[in-house]
Amino acid sequence: MNGQKTTMVVFSGDLDKALAAFIIATGSAAMGNQVSMFFTFWGLNIMRKDQVVNVKKSWMDKTFGWLLPRGPEKLGLSKLHFAGLGPMMMRRVMQKKNVATLNELIQITLELDIKLIACTMSMEVLGIQKEELIDGMEFAGVATYISEANDGNINLFI
Amino acid sequence: MNGQKTTMVVFSGDLDKALAAFIIATGSAAMGNQVSMFFTFWGLNIMRKDQVVNVKKSWMDKTFGWLLPRGPEKLGLSKLHFAGLGPMMMRRVMQKKNVATLNELIQITLELDIKLIACTMSMEVLGIQKEELIDGMEFAGVATYISEANDGNINLFI
Amino acid sequence: MNGQKTTMVVFSGDLDKALAAFIIATGSAAMGNQVSMFFTFWGLNIMRKDQVVNVKKSWMDKTFGWLLPRGPEKLGLSKLHFAGLGPMMMRRVMQKKNVATLNELIQITLELDIKLIACTMSMEVLGIQKEELIDGMEFAGVATYISEANDGNINLFI
Repeated sequence: MNGQKTTMVVFSGDLDKALAAFIIATGSAAMGNQVSMFFTFWGLNIMRKDQVVNVKKSWMDKTFGWLLPRGPEKLGLSKLHFAGLGPMMMRRVMQKKNVATLNELIQITLELDIKLIACTMSMEVLGIQKEELIDGMEFAGVATYISEANDGNINLFI
Repeated sequence: MNGQKTTMVVFSGDLDKALAAFIIATGSAAMGNQVSMFFTFWGLNIMRKDQVVNVKKSWMDKTFGWLLPRGPEKLGLSKLHFAGLGPMMMRRVMQKKNVATLNELIQITLELDIKLIACTMSMEVLGIQKEELIDGMEFAGVATYISEANDGNINLFI
Repeated sequence: MNGQKTTMVVFSGDLDKALAAFIIATGSAAMGNQVSMFFTFWGLNIMRKDQVVNVKKSWMDKTFGWLLPRGPEKLGLSKLHFAGLGPMMMRRVMQKKNVATLNELIQITLELDIKLIACTMSMEVLGIQKEELIDGMEFAGVATYISEANDGNINLFI
C-alpha cells in the first residue's frame, strides 16, 4: 500500500467504457492504490445480475428494468454498435487475444478488495433494487463519494 | 470550508450527465469544498436561457443556435432517448420520487456560491453570446480552468 | 515548470472531445504543467496517420481498421453529426473564427514536449500497429498510466 487512492464515478453503461474503468481500477489496485468505484445511472447496468430477480416494482420501474441491459454480457458499445454486431466482434477479438473479459475483471475487483459502491439515488430513479445487483456491493450516496474523492489522487468520471 | 476544491469541465449537454455534474457539484459544496464548473461545447446548452434572446448573429451562428437545445428543459438523454420519450420518462420519474430537477439544482449552485464559468472559446465557436446564458455566470478561457484545477483535488471531465 | 502535472486518458475518438482534450493539454503545458496523454480505444483513431500504412493484418484487424476513422480529418462529432454535415460545419466555423484545428493542436503538443502515449492493450484489441500511428508517440500499458497519474494533479478521463 503506497497510500495513494483512486476513485471513479462509473456513469456509463457501455461495454467499452466499462472495460476501461475496470482495467484502470484493477491496474490501480495492482500498483498498491486503494480503489473505490461508484456506479451511477447507466453504470448500474454493469453490476446487474444477468437473471431476472423477483422483486416488486411499479409499472415504470419495470419498464426501465426491461429497457436496460442486465449485466456485462448484455452491454453495448459507445461506437460501432451496429445492432449488436460491434459488441460481438469486440468480445470475440478480446477472447482470441486473451484479454480479460469484463466478467473476469469484475471477479478480480472483488478479489483485490476494490470497493464497489452503488449510488442509492440512481437506484431509486432507475428502480433498481439491491437484490438485482451482484453480491459484494456497498450502497451509498453522493456524500460518501465526495469524502472518498477528497482523499483520492486519481479521481475519474467515466 | 475544509480547503478542498472540486472543479469540473462540463462538456456534455445530455440531461443525465448534467444531473450527475450538478449533484456532484452541490454535494461537494455541501461538504465544504470550493466548487468551480466550466461549461464548454455542448455543456453550454445547459446554461442557455429557455427563451430566445434577441442578439445579432451570423447565419451559421443562428443555425447552431437553432439546432442546439435551450436550457435544462430541452436537454436529451445520452441513452434511451427514444425521440424524447426517454427524457420525459426520466423527468416524470424524478418528480414522482422527489429528486431535485436540473433547474432546481442550478438554483442551488447559485445559492451555494459555486462558480459557474462559461468557456469563451466554445461560446465563440458555437456562436453563443453572454446575454443568452443565465445570469450569474462568469466568462473565462482555458488558462483560468488550468489554474483552478491545479488547486483542485477532485477534477472531473463530464 | 511549477511541478504540477496533468494526465489524461483520451478514450473518445470524437472530434469535439479530441479538441477539448488537446486544448486542455496544450493549455496545461503553456501554464508550466508537465502533460501526459494516454490514448486508448477510440482515442487511438485521433493519432492514426491519414494514409493507409502497409502492415500485415488478420481479417478481423483489417475490418476494424477499415471501420475506424484514420486521423483528425476523419473524426465525427459526438452530437449533431448529421451524416458528416456537423463535423464539416464545425471545422468550417473554427477555421473562420481562427480557432486552431486539431491537426495544429497535435503539432503544438509535439513542440511543447507533451508525452503522447498509445495504450498497447487497445492497439492489440483494435489491431492497430505502431507504424499506423503518427511519429513521436510512446507505447505503454496501464501500469505506466497509473504511476504517472499518481504523480498528477489534474487527471481526466475524456
